[in-house]
Amino acid sequence: MSLLVVGSVAFDSVKTAAGARTNSLGGSALYFSASASYFTEVSLVAVVGEDFSEVNRKTLSAREIDISGLETAKGKTFRWEGIYDTQNLNSRETVDTQLNVFADFSPSIGKNNISHPLLFLANIDPVLQSQVLKQMNPKPKIVALDTMDYWINDHRDNLQNTIENVDVLFMDETEIKSFTSKSTIFAAAQTVREMGPRIVLVKRGEYGVLMFNEGDIFSVPAFPVQDVIDPTGAGDSFAGGFMGYLSSTNDFSPESMRRATVVASVMGSFAVEGFSTERVGELTKLEIEDRFRGISGMTYFEPLENSEKLFINTKTGEKIGN
Amino acid sequence: MSLLVVGSVAFDSVKTAAGARTNSLGGSALYFSASASYFTEVSLVAVVGEDFSEVNRKTLSAREIDISGLETAKGKTFRWEGIYDTQNLNSRETVDTQLNVFADFSPSIGKNNISHPLLFLANIDPVLQSQVLKQMNPKPKIVALDTMDYWINDHRDNLQNTIENVDVLFMDETEIKSFTSKSTIFAAAQTVREMGPRIVLVKRGEYGVLMFNEGDIFSVPAFPVQDVIDPTGAGDSFAGGFMGYLSSTNDFSPESMRRATVVASVMGSFAVEGFSTERVGELTKLEIEDRFRGISGMTYFEPLENSEKLFINTKTGEKIGN
Repeated sequence: MSLLVVGSVAFDSVKTAAGARTNSLGGSALYFSASASYFTEVSLVAVVGEDFSEVNRKTLSAREIDISGLETAKGKTFRWEGIYDTQNLNSRETVDTQLNVFADFSPSIGKNNISHPLLFLANIDPVLQSQVLKQMNPKPKIVALDTMDYWINDHRDNLQNTIENVDVLFMDETEIKSFTSKSTIFAAAQTVREMGPRIVLVKRGEYGVLMFNEGDIFSVPAFPVQDVIDPTGAGDSFAGGFMGYLSSTNDFSPESMRRATVVASVMGSFAVEGFSTERVGELTKLEIEDRFRGISGMTYFEPLENSEKLFINTKTGEKIGN
Repeated sequence: MSLLVVGSVAFDSVKTAAGARTNSLGGSALYFSASASYFTEVSLVAVVGEDFSEVNRKTLSAREIDISGLETAKGKTFRWEGIYDTQNLNSRETVDTQLNVFADFSPSIGKNNISHPLLFLANIDPVLQSQVLKQMNPKPKIVALDTMDYWINDHRDNLQNTIENVDVLFMDETEIKSFTSKSTIFAAAQTVREMGPRIVLVKRGEYGVLMFNEGDIFSVPAFPVQDVIDPTGAGDSFAGGFMGYLSSTNDFSPESMRRATVVASVMGSFAVEGFSTERVGELTKLEIEDRFRGISGMTYFEPLENSEKLFINTKTGEKIGN
């Protein structure tokens, strides 16, 4: 199957405890497609400025991402500059945001892109996300959406209208509690699912992820990363793993959704191991499979067989305990 | 098999968002043995004062805990009073601590108690924990130890000496980072394992637990609890589940340690659902098994079979992705 992502392509300048990069390739659509491209055919719709070079384009085409929907507008490419806390990598300060060509972005989905069976609406204005969805024909089988605190806090109604039509919602723990005004993620996920999305993935950073799928809860730990270099793009790479895997299998059963969540966790773990797509864009399939098996190994235990009891000694048949 | 716990029995006065209790039964040894008693024969060594009533004793004997090692000393029983933050139940303030008879506690292990194959050294002065261990004969097959921030911060050397001789160490995330001055729990667990304990269980509250067993990492999510009534005793009930399960199986293989960790998580989840042992002391075995199965359901996904690849379509045999 194939997969469309609509979002941002940007030049990021970041400083972390591990070092710094100036004007390296970034943006939600870029990270997402780099990650998803290991699994499926990805097409990207975004806008860049006249400063977006041939070399930049080649980074995308190296991963065989279809960039026929990458519009070039007059002006400069979106730029973001941030500094991560050296102690707490979950905390970052935005130093500068220059929307540039992104300020007037109104995504127009070309004929060759309107019929992808999977669609990822990366973090942009929820009004634009809705406009993208309306242009798709037929409606995709799976529509997933990511967002951020800015839209949650200041564009809540628009966001709520948009997610009504979405199958899968990605939010982090803080975001979903703030969006729903609930104190537990269980109550928050329930509230969000009543708004529309039947699947909610709550990202908890180093604590992994919880997927809520109908009444079902699925927990995946974060893969233990030795050195976190740069967290930028982890959420988009996570979403890329999830959607990419689903696209590759064309299987949307609960079992497949679980595997997709594990793949998502794996891809997020790679993203933080390098600046820009230095790591997540340069993987081998073996590395990806190794971490998938690694998470299996971290979580497996012998379940109770159907008739098995914790309180009967299987050797003697005697009852155990008081 | 049988299991000995040495720790505190106390009267607790607690206030949480859900209500308050005055002078209800508490203490690390009490919670631990209530939890472990579902799985194995538990003997308790602790000290109480003359104010410890027949009714109090009956609470313990109701769960068939052997209290022949419960010493009664002149004076009053240990008392603790605390208030939990109504927003963040992980945060509590100690209002009052009266050590009373516990101030002169020097545990003497009677002949009937020196040869238990499993020993849990609950949170007391690490010097006393060492003294207990020296009295055991033969050395127990599994010695586990719990502690708290006070001993970690102000009695670090004594604690380090004691854990040299311990197989299993329980610490929460904040404690193990502070004890080892490491910024990740992976590095922290490694450091602690080099000090002696081959198994380290790092408790992460609502995020579950990580067990480090030799080079192996095992992750268990917290069972989702609807209403947290009172977190007091959750850690001891957790340890009680772990040690109780191991004692019942007499199987200390890595697989058994994993199941024991799941049982621990289950027992901790019950402890927080009531004040004192109101919930964890009144369970049915079916309730315990149901939550064990619940955690299986929350964590299971289809692993990659030996020859299976993520990147080969199993139906067509075609390679997937780029």
